[in-house]
Amino acid sequence: MITTDILIIGAGPTGLFTVFEAGLLKLKCHLIDALPQPGGQCSELYPKKPIYDIPGFPEILAGDLTSNLLEQGKQFQPGFTLGERAETIETLDDGSFIVTTNKGTQHHAPIIAIAGGLGSFEPRKPQLENIDSYEDNGLAYFIKDPEVYRDKKVVIAGGGDSALDWGIFLADVASEVTLVHRRNEFRGALDSVERVQELKLLNKINIITPAEITALHGEHKIEGVAVTKDGDTQIIEADAFIPLFGLSPKLGPIGDWGLEIEKNAIKVDTVDYQTNIPGIYAIGDVNTYEGKLKLILCGFHEATLMCQSAYKRLNPGKKFVLKYTTVSGINGFDGTRKESPKAVVKAIL
Amino acid sequence: MITTDILIIGAGPTGLFTVFEAGLLKLKCHLIDALPQPGGQCSELYPKKPIYDIPGFPEILAGDLTSNLLEQGKQFQPGFTLGERAETIETLDDGSFIVTTNKGTQHHAPIIAIAGGLGSFEPRKPQLENIDSYEDNGLAYFIKDPEVYRDKKVVIAGGGDSALDWGIFLADVASEVTLVHRRNEFRGALDSVERVQELKLLNKINIITPAEITALHGEHKIEGVAVTKDGDTQIIEADAFIPLFGLSPKLGPIGDWGLEIEKNAIKVDTVDYQTNIPGIYAIGDVNTYEGKLKLILCGFHEATLMCQSAYKRLNPGKKFVLKYTTVSGINGFDGTRKESPKAVVKAIL
Repeated sequence: MITTDILIIGAGPTGLFTVFEAGLLKLKCHLIDALPQPGGQCSELYPKKPIYDIPGFPEILAGDLTSNLLEQGKQFQPGFTLGERAETIETLDDGSFIVTTNKGTQHHAPIIAIAGGLGSFEPRKPQLENIDSYEDNGLAYFIKDPEVYRDKKVVIAGGGDSALDWGIFLADVASEVTLVHRRNEFRGALDSVERVQELKLLNKINIITPAEITALHGEHKIEGVAVTKDGDTQIIEADAFIPLFGLSPKLGPIGDWGLEIEKNAIKVDTVDYQTNIPGIYAIGDVNTYEGKLKLILCGFHEATLMCQSAYKRLNPGKKFVLKYTTVSGINGFDGTRKESPKAVVKAIL
Repeated sequence: MITTDILIIGAGPTGLFTVFEAGLLKLKCHLIDALPQPGGQCSELYPKKPIYDIPGFPEILAGDLTSNLLEQGKQFQPGFTLGERAETIETLDDGSFIVTTNKGTQHHAPIIAIAGGLGSFEPRKPQLENIDSYEDNGLAYFIKDPEVYRDKKVVIAGGGDSALDWGIFLADVASEVTLVHRRNEFRGALDSVERVQELKLLNKINIITPAEITALHGEHKIEGVAVTKDGDTQIIEADAFIPLFGLSPKLGPIGDWGLEIEKNAIKVDTVDYQTNIPGIYAIGDVNTYEGKLKLILCGFHEATLMCQSAYKRLNPGKKFVLKYTTVSGINGFDGTRKESPKAVVKAIL
């Protein structure tokens, strides 16, 4: 059982900044995310795209924002349960919660902060017979560790940035990479498309277009895929099949936790972004209230006010005085200290 | 008469970010600030100090945050009235406002955003006879343009960073710099104190401590100051006297505008941070509401929601759809356009 002060569901920008604000109040955080890496949409959907409306950054790539937020919170040593989806919640007699993921990992905390963005990102799955039985047996919708594919025969399906970028990356890792797309045209960053074109000419990537995967073969695990082009079907030998048809966000199991839901979002009080269940907060794009804007910068504010409220809930009666980081510095849980250079008091003679 | 869509009172971080958010909605801003440069406290009180709690910046100097925010908003071409304090407000029949500064500059706008921080920074003035008559006649509490002091004899009073830093800067500009402080010990950044020590040994700065300025001399303008040390008083010839005894924030004349005030801050509704006077908003440290935290990142959120509300007020009935900068890009009022590199749709043959 993992225990923490604040269990954050969702490791996007709002969840990551919560680690920092909680840390200033000496509260420890653990994050659960269905994606295999932190950053939420910023990492998964548009890591190389610029965001222009993060205050203080005339422009920042979404992937860099994620790195910066991880760096900003790292001295507060957050824990992570990645690649797992928060599934069920149980309230104990003392008001604390146990959250269990789809893989059975259990987390115990007195405070829950749902920072779930638009929901957990579920891969769009192709309609193929027995596809679920191959999941984790050669079939994957996310690439967690590219080394798994070293010297393997890999078939990727899809025609967007993910398919292009993983095709490029795995061309150097796998023994064979085949990219199957239902159109001749790929849609992605110009340099990615051009790089795949080069790799094709070098025979480092096979391209089959316009074509579709129509069946999966293999006992217990992927051994081959059927590719249909112009009505003809061929079986390609393969150790792995990676369909990259995009992600679609779903509120998912959290929708059944007894929280008040409005327009697929969780209703909160604007004083501290608490839900109808005391001790459970919802911050960032996942929540709704009058005047709500689904912007990252609003999630930062909501996370900050939420941490103050959590602190008061955990320390009833204790008077909290807001400290400014410029004045007080930051004491990390890892023993580090950041502080502004001190003024000296010195005679000039 | 200066006209604009949103008149922002206070050019600190919250006011500066308002320019950007308003610009996304095609609203033009003009800022008034009592200080001679934008940035508020960040520029005036601690430009070289690190801030650790701006989301996405593990550390940023307050002066750099100001520069970044100016850069982020510059394509929306904000106007500035600096070194003047917003003094009076008049409501016209159409519900728009005219705000006049202490120097008589008039501004007309349908929306007012008070982003006044802890108030306008009023210099702490020494108690000297006729001191007000010398203001702008050789006596200044802020240095707007150091060139004014070229080849002049300058006396600075004070023992903190401002006195040290301006002493260092003016040592190369003025013909003579004298620094008077009531203690032998100065309090400031180590390198500033050491630099002043060096300049003293090079005879580029005169230091008189422990001493006080006890009188000002001159007809119509400063011609000399009386310095008292150990009970003895000498008159020093001077063209300029700059007392730098710190700033103290005062809500000031805004306190008389009929706004609901609580604990020296302006009460607002948390839906859009509007005050009790329709069309007048208060954002950042100057406002108060249940759960309020005086943090820069909260000001950013408040500014953003406030701009949306202002847009609806100015465009009644018009449906506004939130656009993401990553998707839509940014069209500057200066004709510039920022946008994410476009995806290409291209066959791989």
